[in-house]
Amino acid sequence: MPTETTNKIAVYPGTFDPITYGHIDVIKRSQKLFEKVIVAVLENSRKSCLFSTAERIDMIKNSVADIEVESFSGLLVDFLKRKNAFFVIRGLRAVSDFDYEFQMAIANKSLVPEIETIFIMTDKEHFYLNSTLVKELAKNRADLKDLVPEPVERALQEKFK
Amino acid sequence: MPTETTNKIAVYPGTFDPITYGHIDVIKRSQKLFEKVIVAVLENSRKSCLFSTAERIDMIKNSVADIEVESFSGLLVDFLKRKNAFFVIRGLRAVSDFDYEFQMAIANKSLVPEIETIFIMTDKEHFYLNSTLVKELAKNRADLKDLVPEPVERALQEKFK
Amino acid sequence: MPTETTNKIAVYPGTFDPITYGHIDVIKRSQKLFEKVIVAVLENSRKSCLFSTAERIDMIKNSVADIEVESFSGLLVDFLKRKNAFFVIRGLRAVSDFDYEFQMAIANKSLVPEIETIFIMTDKEHFYLNSTLVKELAKNRADLKDLVPEPVERALQEKFK
Amino acid sequence: MPTETTNKIAVYPGTFDPITYGHIDVIKRSQKLFEKVIVAVLENSRKSCLFSTAERIDMIKNSVADIEVESFSGLLVDFLKRKNAFFVIRGLRAVSDFDYEFQMAIANKSLVPEIETIFIMTDKEHFYLNSTLVKELAKNRADLKDLVPEPVERALQEKFK
Amino acid sequence: MPTETTNKIAVYPGTFDPITYGHIDVIKRSQKLFEKVIVAVLENSRKSCLFSTAERIDMIKNSVADIEVESFSGLLVDFLKRKNAFFVIRGLRAVSDFDYEFQMAIANKSLVPEIETIFIMTDKEHFYLNSTLVKELAKNRADLKDLVPEPVERALQEKFK
Amino acid sequence: MPTETTNKIAVYPGTFDPITYGHIDVIKRSQKLFEKVIVAVLENSRKSCLFSTAERIDMIKNSVADIEVESFSGLLVDFLKRKNAFFVIRGLRAVSDFDYEFQMAIANKSLVPEIETIFIMTDKEHFYLNSTLVKELAKNRADLKDLVPEPVERALQEKFK
Repeated sequence: MPTETTNKIAVYPGTFDPITYGHIDVIKRSQKLFEKVIVAVLENSRKSCLFSTAERIDMIKNSVADIEVESFSGLLVDFLKRKNAFFVIRGLRAVSDFDYEFQMAIANKSLVPEIETIFIMTDKEHFYLNSTLVKELAKNRADLKDLVPEPVERALQEKFK
Repeated sequence: MPTETTNKIAVYPGTFDPITYGHIDVIKRSQKLFEKVIVAVLENSRKSCLFSTAERIDMIKNSVADIEVESFSGLLVDFLKRKNAFFVIRGLRAVSDFDYEFQMAIANKSLVPEIETIFIMTDKEHFYLNSTLVKELAKNRADLKDLVPEPVERALQEKFK
Repeated sequence: MPTETTNKIAVYPGTFDPITYGHIDVIKRSQKLFEKVIVAVLENSRKSCLFSTAERIDMIKNSVADIEVESFSGLLVDFLKRKNAFFVIRGLRAVSDFDYEFQMAIANKSLVPEIETIFIMTDKEHFYLNSTLVKELAKNRADLKDLVPEPVERALQEKFK
Repeated sequence: MPTETTNKIAVYPGTFDPITYGHIDVIKRSQKLFEKVIVAVLENSRKSCLFSTAERIDMIKNSVADIEVESFSGLLVDFLKRKNAFFVIRGLRAVSDFDYEFQMAIANKSLVPEIETIFIMTDKEHFYLNSTLVKELAKNRADLKDLVPEPVERALQEKFK
Repeated sequence: MPTETTNKIAVYPGTFDPITYGHIDVIKRSQKLFEKVIVAVLENSRKSCLFSTAERIDMIKNSVADIEVESFSGLLVDFLKRKNAFFVIRGLRAVSDFDYEFQMAIANKSLVPEIETIFIMTDKEHFYLNSTLVKELAKNRADLKDLVPEPVERALQEKFK
Repeated sequence: MPTETTNKIAVYPGTFDPITYGHIDVIKRSQKLFEKVIVAVLENSRKSCLFSTAERIDMIKNSVADIEVESFSGLLVDFLKRKNAFFVIRGLRAVSDFDYEFQMAIANKSLVPEIETIFIMTDKEHFYLNSTLVKELAKNRADLKDLVPEPVERALQEKFK
């Protein structure tokens, strides 16, 4: 079992293609709860990404102050071990993700029993927001200022120029 | 806010690859409610289509009498603006679409606040019917006469000859 | 089939114990679509009500300008017939109501085939709001000003004095 | 905003009529994350309880070592304020609770913005376990040893003697 | 483990207050699969019933030819044991029952490991039909001939005379 | 209608890429109910498979004793006809499959009315297990011994060597 002093490290994994205000809301809520929150950017996501891993990491660093961001590939539990982290953070948005979320949470726990997956509710403003929608809107030159931070908005405009 | 006399125009967007009796059921119900219903065929759908945009439009025109059909690409709200329409029609079929439907409805409303998304219930005969199923059945030469109108059945037979 | 000129009358049925900003949001959206919207207050609801039918009607009239409000008991379709209305309005809030909503919509349609049930999405501010929650909060003297109109707030304060 | 040193207090509210291994699983997971976890037993639950508030508190104390247990009535947020707690813990079991959980979480947050509701996944052994089922089984003299701790089993046997 | 020759007995438990064509559809489908299907009418249901246990049994016998019907109280698994049955039949209607169905199926299996719960899909005509709806319609003198067999219709008319 | 003596043949269709203990659990439960269970491996699945059809069939035969396994392409109902089978078995795992399951069950029934789709509940150990997860874990050299039989584990290790 994790000792009292070292275990309040949490990992927030995802594709972040790109990061939205929904993700940032989850990060800020998590930081109130954990000593350290590491954003873990999945490298070889099954879905092909609009932005490279490096670009996705840069956008997160430019959007959230003082946050540790790293990329990872392979199993999440292996990344957790390397980081000595025992908590996984998942943002709760929509019913439809649920099944997959539970599956991953149970799979991770069966691989490393000490791991807890903590679900944090996105605020209702961001409950239906996701990266796919943001990209769709960006492609059609819609206003994104309520959906993503300014550095992300600029990066999207650049991509779809 | 839309004025009383001009705003009863509704747009029913979709891929319609191909149109089924489920879609036609929604169109007929909508026509009882709105002064004009425009079927908007999405051009650059993310999923690759079996039929071209022109073929999909033709099948709709051959299956529904006196209906306005147009293709569109880009954001639905931009198409609505061009058509001076303030209502979007969505057929309610299955729970699993729900999250996406709400997301799109909220996104559209946040882009153009006057827009209302109206959900109309498909009758229970068509509650589990969709275009993917129809194509799967057509590919295997199943009888389609309860699922799609005759011009669509012929077009499907031609494709899978 | 309803004729073109007389059929744009809609009924919005419910218990309204009490009316909330969520209900009012649905009424306002409906009024953009229908010539007349009648709020139908269910008299003998299975759940016992905090407010009498008369009180519930009064609160609606004091909260929404120029709205027709009536009580009804028995089958909704019988009320619709008396009002010569062919449309039922239902606010779409949460996944969990869904099954019941469909059941009622199909039951109503099987009794009177001309009836259409139209689902209108509550805005996201009110997506998780309902009368039970409002009463719970009122009982504990919480601030209700974002949840119900001022006449309803006063009536609730009076009840729980 | 809560300060770094005082805010790691969490409240786990519920009826606990009686406590099950599912609840205890959530408590143990929470204790790894928070400095203090207070179990808050709801006094005037809408559903009438099999056990009195005092009995329910006793069973919790007899089942979980070194846990702070208190009863509360009224709004949860008022109890949180009195305890200087900013976190609410909810066990994630079944899809059907979801809507209610979100509603309460949003309502609590709208009353006291600093409050975070944290969802913790029950392990799969207890995913379908609840107090109602336990009482049903106890009434029919089924074996309860995998469902509730020994003091609860005895209390149930006593009740249904 | 049940032996090959004796175990094709199934129990279909429920309140049946009253039996509908939805239940009968499930019974008929079950009879194609099992050697014997026993309809088990729950005596002390938590919800108070419109019809007495004897009336509910009579209506089933008058509506379905050559069916074994019995009442039971207490745990379903105890009834199964007395009947030497290893299969429980449940009609699959709506998403919202799901959680409860799984809970009961798992509970039954944990009490008697040999028990299998078999879910059979109601046909789409009856997917949204249930006894509560039927009673609501009967109370208001709606036509019930597509929903319940003739003996049930008469019994309902008698009750609500 | 199927005759009493020939109709207790069931088909369990799927991709089985690869077979897991979840599938095997469903097969074993089905064998208690049916005279013969045929595992039907879908050849031209829309999703590209990790294993060839021959490899998938081999793994099933090496993992389950005395089971009939065949590949099929085209419509499931055509395969059922060739096998003189009237029952389709589906494992019930997660809510999210539900819509698709019903659609297929209704489609199959509308093509061949005698066909019944029987849903069997996976035990709770396997409720969140699927082939995609297994492949993801195998790719990252996780321990698979609780998820798949030994011949499948070896085949996966070989693939990802």
